[in-house]
Amino acid sequence: MTTVDLNADMGESFGPWPMGNDAALLDIVTSANIACGFHAGDPDTMAQTMARAARGGVGIGAHPGLLDLQGFGRRRMTVPHETLANWTRYQLGAAQTMAKAAGAQVRHLKLHGALGNMTSEDAEMAMACYAAALDVDPDIVIVAMAATAQERAVRDLGCAYAAEIFADRAYNDDATLVDRSQPHAVIHDPDHAARRIAEMVSEGAIVTDTGKRIPTRIDTICMHGDNADAVALSRAVRSGLETAGIEVRRFAARR
Amino acid sequence: MTTVDLNADMGESFGPWPMGNDAALLDIVTSANIACGFHAGDPDTMAQTMARAARGGVGIGAHPGLLDLQGFGRRRMTVPHETLANWTRYQLGAAQTMAKAAGAQVRHLKLHGALGNMTSEDAEMAMACYAAALDVDPDIVIVAMAATAQERAVRDLGCAYAAEIFADRAYNDDATLVDRSQPHAVIHDPDHAARRIAEMVSEGAIVTDTGKRIPTRIDTICMHGDNADAVALSRAVRSGLETAGIEVRRFAARR
Amino acid sequence: MTTVDLNADMGESFGPWPMGNDAALLDIVTSANIACGFHAGDPDTMAQTMARAARGGVGIGAHPGLLDLQGFGRRRMTVPHETLANWTRYQLGAAQTMAKAAGAQVRHLKLHGALGNMTSEDAEMAMACYAAALDVDPDIVIVAMAATAQERAVRDLGCAYAAEIFADRAYNDDATLVDRSQPHAVIHDPDHAARRIAEMVSEGAIVTDTGKRIPTRIDTICMHGDNADAVALSRAVRSGLETAGIEVRRFAARR
Amino acid sequence: MTTVDLNADMGESFGPWPMGNDAALLDIVTSANIACGFHAGDPDTMAQTMARAARGGVGIGAHPGLLDLQGFGRRRMTVPHETLANWTRYQLGAAQTMAKAAGAQVRHLKLHGALGNMTSEDAEMAMACYAAALDVDPDIVIVAMAATAQERAVRDLGCAYAAEIFADRAYNDDATLVDRSQPHAVIHDPDHAARRIAEMVSEGAIVTDTGKRIPTRIDTICMHGDNADAVALSRAVRSGLETAGIEVRRFAARR
Repeated sequence: MTTVDLNADMGESFGPWPMGNDAALLDIVTSANIACGFHAGDPDTMAQTMARAARGGVGIGAHPGLLDLQGFGRRRMTVPHETLANWTRYQLGAAQTMAKAAGAQVRHLKLHGALGNMTSEDAEMAMACYAAALDVDPDIVIVAMAATAQERAVRDLGCAYAAEIFADRAYNDDATLVDRSQPHAVIHDPDHAARRIAEMVSEGAIVTDTGKRIPTRIDTICMHGDNADAVALSRAVRSGLETAGIEVRRFAARR
Repeated sequence: MTTVDLNADMGESFGPWPMGNDAALLDIVTSANIACGFHAGDPDTMAQTMARAARGGVGIGAHPGLLDLQGFGRRRMTVPHETLANWTRYQLGAAQTMAKAAGAQVRHLKLHGALGNMTSEDAEMAMACYAAALDVDPDIVIVAMAATAQERAVRDLGCAYAAEIFADRAYNDDATLVDRSQPHAVIHDPDHAARRIAEMVSEGAIVTDTGKRIPTRIDTICMHGDNADAVALSRAVRSGLETAGIEVRRFAARR
Repeated sequence: MTTVDLNADMGESFGPWPMGNDAALLDIVTSANIACGFHAGDPDTMAQTMARAARGGVGIGAHPGLLDLQGFGRRRMTVPHETLANWTRYQLGAAQTMAKAAGAQVRHLKLHGALGNMTSEDAEMAMACYAAALDVDPDIVIVAMAATAQERAVRDLGCAYAAEIFADRAYNDDATLVDRSQPHAVIHDPDHAARRIAEMVSEGAIVTDTGKRIPTRIDTICMHGDNADAVALSRAVRSGLETAGIEVRRFAARR
Repeated sequence: MTTVDLNADMGESFGPWPMGNDAALLDIVTSANIACGFHAGDPDTMAQTMARAARGGVGIGAHPGLLDLQGFGRRRMTVPHETLANWTRYQLGAAQTMAKAAGAQVRHLKLHGALGNMTSEDAEMAMACYAAALDVDPDIVIVAMAATAQERAVRDLGCAYAAEIFADRAYNDDATLVDRSQPHAVIHDPDHAARRIAEMVSEGAIVTDTGKRIPTRIDTICMHGDNADAVALSRAVRSGLETAGIEVRRFAARR
């Protein structure tokens, strides 16, 4: 039976400022990427989010980002690879401890925002971050964007990883995401998203905007939950997968 | 044979700003309290300091502080105990990972600055921080100021600890430190400091300003290294201890 | 004709995190206390809030707080008065510039959160902050909590000020606020709040929980807008004042 | 008589961390670029630096940088122009107030680090920052790197500016700086630097590494003071200019 994981970012509140729909998402996804304090999150928020995820049986991931709270880690910064490696180690360590205090453990790592985007284009930068995480925990599963420099990096490292596609983004014929400036870049219709994702997972291929199939490993789907519509779309995607006979469950640690 | 440990704060640089004489201190002390990024330190500084301490055979400690870089963690803040517990967990986790990447491990924990001062007066606050650290690592050794609320807290917790006195601070007859506003509060003369510390360790007692003896367990001496004089004083204290037949070595994990 | 000003905190978003109901409050209040980046706000948020307040004809105030974003400036910190003076100058200067870019100007200053609370108890600390603001702009109007050390400080300074009471907080017989741990500390009923505030302004007195009258100057009412109920209460208070024949308008610069 | 200004960055300490040789530089330069808290500096440091510069009769400039303390504003970040404009306004406003409290005023503005580098390549980005500063103070003098996009921007804006060359950096034949990876990129010999700068100012031209002359307006020389050698080089450059009959004094406000 085909299985797939659903992941979403969580724990993105900061101090007095709430963000996201963690409670709703925890009923939908099987893996949570939890912010580690550099671009969002703080120790109290991490503690609460870890505890909720653990109670909900959702897999816990560290979600390191660039050191830029005001910019939410979405502004690109030119940072030496060794510094990025140390930022990854630091944030992963903090996440491990907060998870342990919640009776859980960090199982995966996914890079956030601009760090995610830069490493999807630059395999050396991705390797610097991923190798740093593997130093700390050789069994950690890296969530890597399918068919990008992130996936090339994890393959070169030979580590366990989960290949990821996006629930609400259209793909170009070279497997890159359609630029947000294009009208069809973001998919808003829950039924369309649901059909499309079920199709991709069933076929083991990215289906592009033009209908082209790019065979690729798909282990997890990235969901968004930053507004009510996003939660509804996530719910529809999960439901569509189940209807198509695909089991939604946490990814296994495959190399 | 009597033994005693010497500890000092290290890794207190931040970004482009250097601080301290870590290289000189690593030749003198047996335990290093390494800043964890909240009051000083950053991931690169932590990585370098961990690596140096490991190479020097010096015991590595996490040195969590209040979240106040501009104030260097020296400004008291009213923070809920549960938040302090999460700050302790977070910083300890980051330190553990950075140590692991340096092929070492965190062996002890000492609270910094205003957090140290507040917890030396408030056993409940001390317990909140220490219990959080022990959740994460039940074998961690807490460095607690001798004869203060910190020592009461570790005794109540029943955990391994090292009782600490200060190399360069005069004591009142109730074992508190002479206030810095007083002329004799800080000891600047290396010979005087050396004689006094050797006496205290030999006798197993704090020797107060008036000459009174307060019997207390002494496992480690806090050294300062923020200027050339402080390094000279630290060297004299070490030498004085050795001359007195006291072995300087890392503290054992005693409860 | 009796007049009174209504003030509320605004511009408390930070980076990606929205906060408050600024749009709704701008229709109710006559003065806006705009966060300056230390406890909330950032340059973009300040620019937008200044522009909105200017368009709405609402008086613009700088709202300096302690340097503690994660704690929203609500955690007390022990900071030297001279540093608090410099923090006040810095934040006021930033606010002046952002106001100028919006075609407006900063007319008043109100201290935020823990800095507000500490200065309502400590007239010397209040004077340090207020004198710093007056250095920069001798015509600035200080919003000071009526019958507290803040009001004593502005009287001693002889500067223009607006005496403030709270729309939703009960008062003790010594004019201090009923502690939040008490059941009646916070007033949630809009009608009750409206009647009470109209009564206080008409009588020129704080009406305490026991019904006692403490004659005091009242120039402005502090409203809250952090949730829908708070906005409803603010609206009711304004309506109640108008029904009682009290004109709601920006405070004059009285000494 | 030919005149030229000498400028240097100052006030780059942060909290407990000192940086630079401000006292030595104040005897050499005629204009100080004072950090505004985003990449270095804090309100206390700004207050002290403003007061020192005012006492020393040195022209005071705001020196805004990217919001990146740990990276000292030297890491490039992709920030929208409107946000950069607001960062510039905010920092300039803070600097104006701190100067006013020191009995002085901000006379010029120079962009720091990566913001300086990016705007020397991108005239639109430079215009966004400079126009924001001119909104706040139409008379402010912009210090712009000679023959770069910064100078093109100030010319297009038609504002007062000072064209700047570097005391210790070699130039390529297209007026760009020789990359730091090249052996001759940085000039360490004080006599060589002094002769070269006197030559450039006398001739009104950048003298490149190959000896080519690029005629350009030169109003100010950027000095560095981050170590003893840099201070010695700065002193030599000043002395060399005076020996060549060039008067060292604050730049005039030329358009």
